Amino acid sequence: MVEPRRVLVVGTGLVGTSLALALSAAGDAVSLSDPDPRALALAVALGAGTPALDGAADVVDVVVVAAPPDATAAAVVAALGAHPRATVTDVASVKAPVAAQVAAALGEAGATHAARYVGGHPMAGRERSGPGAASADLFLGRPWVLCPGPRAQSGRVEQVAALAARAGAQVTVMDAGEHDAAVAVVSHLPQVAASLVAARLVHADPAVLALSGQGLRDTTRVAASDPALWTAVLAANAAPVRAALQGLRDDVETMITALGQAAATPGDAIGQDAGARGARAQLSALLTCGRAGAARIPGKHGRPARAWAVVTVLVADAPGELARLFADVGAAGVNLEELRLDHSPGRALGLAEVSVDPARAGDLLAALERCGWAVHPG
Amino acid sequence: MVEPRRVLVVGTGLVGTSLALALSAAGDAVSLSDPDPRALALAVALGAGTPALDGAADVVDVVVVAAPPDATAAAVVAALGAHPRATVTDVASVKAPVAAQVAAALGEAGATHAARYVGGHPMAGRERSGPGAASADLFLGRPWVLCPGPRAQSGRVEQVAALAARAGAQVTVMDAGEHDAAVAVVSHLPQVAASLVAARLVHADPAVLALSGQGLRDTTRVAASDPALWTAVLAANAAPVRAALQGLRDDVETMITALGQAAATPGDAIGQDAGARGARAQLSALLTCGRAGAARIPGKHGRPARAWAVVTVLVADAPGELARLFADVGAAGVNLEELRLDHSPGRALGLAEVSVDPARAGDLLAALERCGWAVHPG
Repeated sequence: MVEPRRVLVVGTGLVGTSLALALSAAGDAVSLSDPDPRALALAVALGAGTPALDGAADVVDVVVVAAPPDATAAAVVAALGAHPRATVTDVASVKAPVAAQVAAALGEAGATHAARYVGGHPMAGRERSGPGAASADLFLGRPWVLCPGPRAQSGRVEQVAALAARAGAQVTVMDAGEHDAAVAVVSHLPQVAASLVAARLVHADPAVLALSGQGLRDTTRVAASDPALWTAVLAANAAPVRAALQGLRDDVETMITALGQAAATPGDAIGQDAGARGARAQLSALLTCGRAGAARIPGKHGRPARAWAVVTVLVADAPGELARLFADVGAAGVNLEELRLDHSPGRALGLAEVSVDPARAGDLLAALERCGWAVHPG
Repeated sequence: MVEPRRVLVVGTGLVGTSLALALSAAGDAVSLSDPDPRALALAVALGAGTPALDGAADVVDVVVVAAPPDATAAAVVAALGAHPRATVTDVASVKAPVAAQVAAALGEAGATHAARYVGGHPMAGRERSGPGAASADLFLGRPWVLCPGPRAQSGRVEQVAALAARAGAQVTVMDAGEHDAAVAVVSHLPQVAASLVAARLVHADPAVLALSGQGLRDTTRVAASDPALWTAVLAANAAPVRAALQGLRDDVETMITALGQAAATPGDAIGQDAGARGARAQLSALLTCGRAGAARIPGKHGRPARAWAVVTVLVADAPGELARLFADVGAAGVNLEELRLDHSPGRALGLAEVSVDPARAGDLLAALERCGWAVHPG
């Protein structure tokens, strides 16, 4: 029989509590601490673990620091001191500054401490925060990046990788600097762009907002996230985020200039002059580049996105209608790969866009039509 | 018995064919024309209408010009000449330049023609284009903005409003300039932002792309749209889009400057100095403004977004599993308001986030647990 692994989770916010729930479910003995007694009590009540004892009485194998990014390095150093045999990891979304701060605090003499520290970043989150939003499923199938420093022992790295795997994550090892540059582009830049697009709506007239569609809602969804958390994340990853934003700013500037030259005028409705043609070519090149970039984003199961065939179904907004639809999809023996509900503001009707294996789309279309659904391909 | 309304749709792309399908379903007699014979043939085969006859033999009540934005004004002027009694409208997504071009072409003497023209813009579309992506449902519950010029007869405006209503849209009347400024902010700006964020991924390493999550996918979804169409739209609405982009550029610039001052350093991990504190306050203010803007975007049925309670359910990626879930939701008598499938790359599991009336969330949670589902609130 394997002895339960003893894990201390320091910080019972969304990520810490979710991890504690997942590890508890996997059979680990999880203890919890948080400077906020209410957050700790809520995490304990949710079944995430037991409150940690004070001092050395609490012997653990692994300490996971799930503190805000600003507080992570200090908490890691404290954990290395308080638990002199434990492996220590963290979940901060920026890795190089935390590693540098930990190394600076430990100094040359801290080699035995440094050997036990393995930085980590589970790529999982949501717009809501706090232990109340936690879920044992948060890490299922998500990347969990480990960034061991040069002094980290390989056995310690394996221990943290095993912990991440027990939470259901897919472990990747990466250099801390490479990690920070990557998240600047795939996570921090879209967050800032969403916030800044949404910020332009803060004084908009309700008649303007009434013209909003699903495109605006999707583009700005992550702008609902916690500003305090994101301020800390962006500040901690300042240099890579700045580089990404400078690239964005240059492209925005190119668009502004091109729009000044591409403008349609009554006398030149189709942009016949060479300047307007060149400016439009620039606009088109940027939009084409964007489409190519979007096509590279991996979709479900790591497969390329948008490889499915779509069947659109009109669904009345009434209890049981979606149940009936999915019963009919299931009866057709076709696996639903992705689903998108397209809302119709002001009207009690929705469109369900059902993505399926292109080889099965014809069968599904025919089967749903036989069941009386209003369907169409694409 | 009401005589079928005779409508000619000029242009059988996504919007023209969708409108023709909707009007045919509503009992109108719809004729179609398109310079591309294959597009016309496909629209006819889909049941959108019959090919238009050449010349004055084809007597119609309303002509809808559904041409690309660049070609709209010329097609409107041609339609006013070819059908001297018909009301003429268009669906171009930019209104003031089209109105100016039509007015310039008609001149002072064209008052009888100008009285019959009512510009319009159905706020509906999708990433795919062409008649093959058309749907009679495209306009259901969507805003359809009418921008009648000063010389338009009120009876003509009512005729176009009735047509839009027959397609299922919600009609709004607006000044053309106000319309163009509004769509620059709620539609064109998010389109450009999505494209430019996605453009930064075009040369990204696959290891970087592997860290992508749902936030990036949502933020960049509309970047998959047709670059040629969007180049024409942006060029036609150049001045308002430039103004929106200049606002975005200024905010990006503020962020870049603030990030340069807010950077965490090993010696100042928590930004204690006054400059760093001020810079972080600036970052936080922009993100907070973004959150406030996002909260103002109307959701389904025009109600404020994000007012629902969320119940999250773990769903195996197998045929019939979602069917079983929705059957159980239906059996619980709870209406599903929104649905989000959260994919787990690399793993055959999904999370369904079911949004329901907050007053019913507890019932649903209990009912689904009794049915054996792994669920949690939030």
